[in-house]
Amino acid sequence: MPSAPSRKKTAHPSKLGELGELALLDRIRLRAAQTPHSGLPLGIGDDCALLRLRPGEELAVTTDLSIAGRHFRLDWHSPESVGHRTLARGLSDLAAMGARPVAAFLSLGLPRELVQSARGQAPWVERFLDGLLALAGAHRTPLAGGDLAESPLAVADIVLAGAVRHGQALLRSGAHPGDRLYVTGHLGGAAAGLERLAQLAGAEQKSHFRPPRISKSQASLLAPHLYPQPRLAQGQWLVRHKLATAAIDLSDGLSTDLAHLCAASGVIAEIDATTLPLHPNATLAQALHGGEDYELLFAAPAEARLPRSIGGVALTPIGRLLRPRKNTPPITLLTTEGPLALTPQGWQHFSTSAFQK
Amino acid sequence: MPSAPSRKKTAHPSKLGELGELALLDRIRLRAAQTPHSGLPLGIGDDCALLRLRPGEELAVTTDLSIAGRHFRLDWHSPESVGHRTLARGLSDLAAMGARPVAAFLSLGLPRELVQSARGQAPWVERFLDGLLALAGAHRTPLAGGDLAESPLAVADIVLAGAVRHGQALLRSGAHPGDRLYVTGHLGGAAAGLERLAQLAGAEQKSHFRPPRISKSQASLLAPHLYPQPRLAQGQWLVRHKLATAAIDLSDGLSTDLAHLCAASGVIAEIDATTLPLHPNATLAQALHGGEDYELLFAAPAEARLPRSIGGVALTPIGRLLRPRKNTPPITLLTTEGPLALTPQGWQHFSTSAFQK
Repeated sequence: MPSAPSRKKTAHPSKLGELGELALLDRIRLRAAQTPHSGLPLGIGDDCALLRLRPGEELAVTTDLSIAGRHFRLDWHSPESVGHRTLARGLSDLAAMGARPVAAFLSLGLPRELVQSARGQAPWVERFLDGLLALAGAHRTPLAGGDLAESPLAVADIVLAGAVRHGQALLRSGAHPGDRLYVTGHLGGAAAGLERLAQLAGAEQKSHFRPPRISKSQASLLAPHLYPQPRLAQGQWLVRHKLATAAIDLSDGLSTDLAHLCAASGVIAEIDATTLPLHPNATLAQALHGGEDYELLFAAPAEARLPRSIGGVALTPIGRLLRPRKNTPPITLLTTEGPLALTPQGWQHFSTSAFQK
Repeated sequence: MPSAPSRKKTAHPSKLGELGELALLDRIRLRAAQTPHSGLPLGIGDDCALLRLRPGEELAVTTDLSIAGRHFRLDWHSPESVGHRTLARGLSDLAAMGARPVAAFLSLGLPRELVQSARGQAPWVERFLDGLLALAGAHRTPLAGGDLAESPLAVADIVLAGAVRHGQALLRSGAHPGDRLYVTGHLGGAAAGLERLAQLAGAEQKSHFRPPRISKSQASLLAPHLYPQPRLAQGQWLVRHKLATAAIDLSDGLSTDLAHLCAASGVIAEIDATTLPLHPNATLAQALHGGEDYELLFAAPAEARLPRSIGGVALTPIGRLLRPRKNTPPITLLTTEGPLALTPQGWQHFSTSAFQK
């Protein structure tokens, strides 16, 4: 039987390395199906995915856009790190609400060469998925859908859907004057790691897409930047024990994210520079303003008894919240040389371009 | 009181036209708050938005990535059209599941000049939001969150969350041999409109970002492409009346989307060229292979009594589904000159580049 008139000819390459959209989608679907999960009656392959919550739960949703040259650099970050960091950003937002992950969605725009294999090596997109799916598996977060497009610029938008009991989500707006401030883990490690990565990348004469070689001793220094760990267990612990009045994740830096929490709660803050849990490699400035640590910052009533750690991650009291007062800045940093006004110095798009290539 | 040491200086422009990220976010939040909605306890402004379903409902989620030069062109499409089309893609996926929209999320990466006003005119991003929010308002879909980044390339990822009763969603996979096939509205209008738009754009000597001037008589010709209407009421009607066994939206073109439905349901199809509801301006090839009509294609049992229209949109029987047979192609097109094998000719990323600038 002859064929109907066609609008255009479409190739259907099926080999990995010359992937068409459908073949790549099949490949992603196959790999995504290996993540254990619950609450996902329908994953990749229809017009929408279907998610089911338990009775009494509501859904927390967040999206985070990662763009080559802004949020990562193909010549600095390995594909595995880009995949990990893409998902970590979204998971960290769920952690800050105290939600358990239900599903992730990924919209991916990639230049053709990142989908093709070169010199017998796995295509960039496969290694990106390695990094993303390893973290997804660790947090039982199925990749449930997304979109795929060819793009001259590599972009990845991650969407996370999580579940939390009605009215129990940790908001930025619930803190009160008198509450204590706490952070999980250590601060400034990601900024210190990024600085070191920039040095390594600058020192090496590299090819276009080749991130610098990283030795074992450097790996632990770079890990807080390349492989940040979202604090999901800690956020869910706080919800379960009803101890936190407000929370936010440290994505833009302590000075910026604390300002958000204060503004949303209508309070001001006083933090103590001498008790800040600095990462061993970090300076005070990196701990205060360096973004992407993805630790949790939260407030709890002064009388609340908090443990020293949750799930093996340290918990450190760093200050307190106060009623706003005339002539007192939104955030005061107590130092051995006296109090300082702390100004938000974190990342803001359309007004800075520090990381721009 | 002196200031703490800073990592970098951050400008905080507040005027529209020199928007920083926070100012633009505030602006979007303000505008988004005007959309009527229900089921959204917490919108823009925290780490996540919170969505609440009614008892017995599950959540349908879809993401669609739109990239300048691939899905739209800054020199062809007005900002209002880009905003409308961005949201229409996601709403159409909800329509295909029979879901009612609960919330939309938008991740937006934009070059700086699209955020700034020029010659006293509203910035591109404001007019983009005009188009997006007008459609959102018409379908009571609040913009509940998203992300914002500076990007050398304009990209917009839209996420739609919708609600549908447990087990009632219209899937691609539920059709049976013997079912009849139906489409809403008319086919090929979007492809015909795109072709006309390309002619207009080519005929005009244009400045970099200036879409062609469109006269009133041309507007109706271009509307199916510039302002497609997602068939939400029709999808929800089908769920309510339990008449459809499977459905998909016509985003990639009838030949491609019907092939998806057939593959998912394990059936083959026979459609009749003489009864296809061609758009008055469209050729048969445009109706068969032109994407972006965003009409619904669905299957229903042969004995089902369907109306001639739903909510003012025509419903047309176009063929039937059969059990797969040897030597019979997945889709047969019946024409006055005999049967033809219809091959999917729709859009596929990484294998075609017809729309690439």
